[in-house]
Amino acid sequence: MSEKALSRLMEFLSIPSISTDKDYEEDMRRCSRWLEREFESMGMMCDPFETGGHPVVLAWTKPVPGKRTVLIYGHYDVQPVDPLSAWDSDPFSPEIRDGKIFARGATDNKGQIYAHMTGVAEALKIQGELPVNIIFLVEGEEEIGSPNLRGFLEANWERLACDIIVVSDTSMVAPGIGTLTYGLRGIAAMEVMVHGPKMDLHSGMYGGAVANPATVAAQLVSTLHDENGSVAIDGFYEGVTELHPWEREQWRNLPFNDAELIRITGVPALAGEAGYSGVERIWTRPTAEVNGLTSGYQGEGTKTVIPSWARIKLTFRLVPGQDTEHVLELAEKHFQKHCPPSVRLEIKKGHAGKPYLFDPKHPDAVAAQAALREVFEGDIALIREGGSIPIVETFQEILGVPTLLAGLALPDCNAHSPNESFLVDNFVKGIQLNQELLRALARK
Amino acid sequence: MSEKALSRLMEFLSIPSISTDKDYEEDMRRCSRWLEREFESMGMMCDPFETGGHPVVLAWTKPVPGKRTVLIYGHYDVQPVDPLSAWDSDPFSPEIRDGKIFARGATDNKGQIYAHMTGVAEALKIQGELPVNIIFLVEGEEEIGSPNLRGFLEANWERLACDIIVVSDTSMVAPGIGTLTYGLRGIAAMEVMVHGPKMDLHSGMYGGAVANPATVAAQLVSTLHDENGSVAIDGFYEGVTELHPWEREQWRNLPFNDAELIRITGVPALAGEAGYSGVERIWTRPTAEVNGLTSGYQGEGTKTVIPSWARIKLTFRLVPGQDTEHVLELAEKHFQKHCPPSVRLEIKKGHAGKPYLFDPKHPDAVAAQAALREVFEGDIALIREGGSIPIVETFQEILGVPTLLAGLALPDCNAHSPNESFLVDNFVKGIQLNQELLRALARK
Repeated sequence: MSEKALSRLMEFLSIPSISTDKDYEEDMRRCSRWLEREFESMGMMCDPFETGGHPVVLAWTKPVPGKRTVLIYGHYDVQPVDPLSAWDSDPFSPEIRDGKIFARGATDNKGQIYAHMTGVAEALKIQGELPVNIIFLVEGEEEIGSPNLRGFLEANWERLACDIIVVSDTSMVAPGIGTLTYGLRGIAAMEVMVHGPKMDLHSGMYGGAVANPATVAAQLVSTLHDENGSVAIDGFYEGVTELHPWEREQWRNLPFNDAELIRITGVPALAGEAGYSGVERIWTRPTAEVNGLTSGYQGEGTKTVIPSWARIKLTFRLVPGQDTEHVLELAEKHFQKHCPPSVRLEIKKGHAGKPYLFDPKHPDAVAAQAALREVFEGDIALIREGGSIPIVETFQEILGVPTLLAGLALPDCNAHSPNESFLVDNFVKGIQLNQELLRALARK
Repeated sequence: MSEKALSRLMEFLSIPSISTDKDYEEDMRRCSRWLEREFESMGMMCDPFETGGHPVVLAWTKPVPGKRTVLIYGHYDVQPVDPLSAWDSDPFSPEIRDGKIFARGATDNKGQIYAHMTGVAEALKIQGELPVNIIFLVEGEEEIGSPNLRGFLEANWERLACDIIVVSDTSMVAPGIGTLTYGLRGIAAMEVMVHGPKMDLHSGMYGGAVANPATVAAQLVSTLHDENGSVAIDGFYEGVTELHPWEREQWRNLPFNDAELIRITGVPALAGEAGYSGVERIWTRPTAEVNGLTSGYQGEGTKTVIPSWARIKLTFRLVPGQDTEHVLELAEKHFQKHCPPSVRLEIKKGHAGKPYLFDPKHPDAVAAQAALREVFEGDIALIREGGSIPIVETFQEILGVPTLLAGLALPDCNAHSPNESFLVDNFVKGIQLNQELLRALARK
């Protein structure tokens, strides 16, 4: 890796491309234009595509007949940064400390997609050609559920024709262990508003006679789990496939285990569904998670009000066998069933992404394992993951092509959290992985 | 009432004297100085008293031997104004619309205390003397539980010696019905922090294996009530005195009833403890009310995190027979008992104020009823109230004197809510009430 590549990555990371927040719309544009110029300087052809939301950046090498085509997917949008006060350095002024790059998006996903770009750039510069035809597809809406990518794929499937897709947006089980992820959880989002009195009420003048929306919201959330930590929505587990004994067996000895989970998260004890280890729960079991809870007075001190409303922001993580839309319908029914007549519910269904499973014995999966062994000197792991990359399932559906998930995120990289980081060494390994992988996939 | 008195009140209301928020400390000073100048211009003696918090303003007429002494209490601090966007006009730019003054503090308590000040000012101007000796005690910390007033009373009890205390900070049951309040609920505040992971976590990468603090907070709140709407904290109802049959009987026909509660609050249906009307619940039953709930992402869109912490702001409203400190201890025990080992609780006990009951047949209560009959042409009601004026119990304890609660707030005045208002007519009646009441109390 050249120093130049690292300094270009730092520039990429300094653009605050937060897709969920309208205040950053201009930065999103700036980031997509930055990528275009970058691809053009690599000698690739490049087009930005308007989507109705944030643009998709598409880049490609001139197709050589007889060569296989690999599509590399990534995203240039990042998560919001709050709470900003918890960051040790500015999230958009990247800093290297202890061999790690600290910045929002360092791991998720700018560092990883830029490693692939650098791998291709170097190969083009040194060899003048690649072992495969390459298409880069870098979108700007992954963190908000890729609402426009399906439409983009449907409209452009011909020019996106490829043999295999590569995505580096998943985790390694530990530093130095190359990891192929063959399963992902899906996601389905929901917002529940509990409407009570038409305005905040004096809790002395009215308290006792009207339902408190904060209390009702809490009661609704408390109905989501039973005493064993399972989700208590009727029908929620319909179709869920149990994990295989060989999976449980090979995960038992991974360095990413319950003790490691406690160390990383700092919780006094793990929690969750009875009968599963922490790792098994994250990789193979669905969840109902509250991401945001808001009601009443948020400031300093006391304000003696009965809040007019309460808001619950929820996401469900789903596993193979579950249907996202169906789960959202079940959840809506569940909330309506448990809602008392003294308040009114307003339920908004949000973005959804399907879960994913890919056979680790597929020839391209075998090629990916070979490339990982090369880069990581034999140390590799086969895992599933708890996160969601909804578009992987969409690729399968629209382009008819499976996806290889060979990610470089570390368990303590703080993706979505303050102080997100990416090992400089993993940036280097990502560049090598790109080059080994393209060779391995070409050889097939 | 002179136009001047109304315009002086508008000036009083334009000072943003929010006691709970440190940003308004200078405005609190400005407000206390405004009152000092006002009392001096009435020809009264006046001193501000430092308290460690916001100053107490004390004003008095030269004591005439043989005359009874009446202490009139009020407060110049007001509640915060959020959500500001829900106000039809600026909360600190008072406006008169439809015969009502709209401003934060219009009813609670600037409008009412200024009516008493105007009553005394006019009497002094016209008659040159008053039927009783008068002490005004106007504090700046009522909305935060009067943390320094007890110390002030203890240090100054000799100069505060009086025969009866008058407070106008309670409600009328309806416009035109003079109301004597002989009972108040107490209050006890608590903040519960639920600490989970050391930072916000990616809900895909960790969801399922760690307790979600928002979910735990919700579960804790859901344990506060049983299926009958009663508070489910062990020992909470110990010592609670049941309401008297005569109270139930005379309240049955008040215009402030369940239908009126629904109209004012706009809720689809009332809720609360089984076996009581809405009014009975508010006036005689204790509550556990969530005033603020905060966890995780508060912004627009979705952020897929497991929040690091959740906060519950709570107040309990208490009735005669309950001990505030004891209730807070029971609540703390309750939360600790229900807390799972996967999170850590941090509980802060907040301000507390005792409940109050005063015999409506006491000679001064009878005098107050006579004054109210005079001003309201016979229409009066005897009620209790759901709000808390903790210092009333403190007056009894330290000064050894009971308090007459003859308030002018209307059920739809939006105290503590956006668009707080005060009828101009009630300002006029408040001035008359002050003059009738001082005469009635002197005659005794």
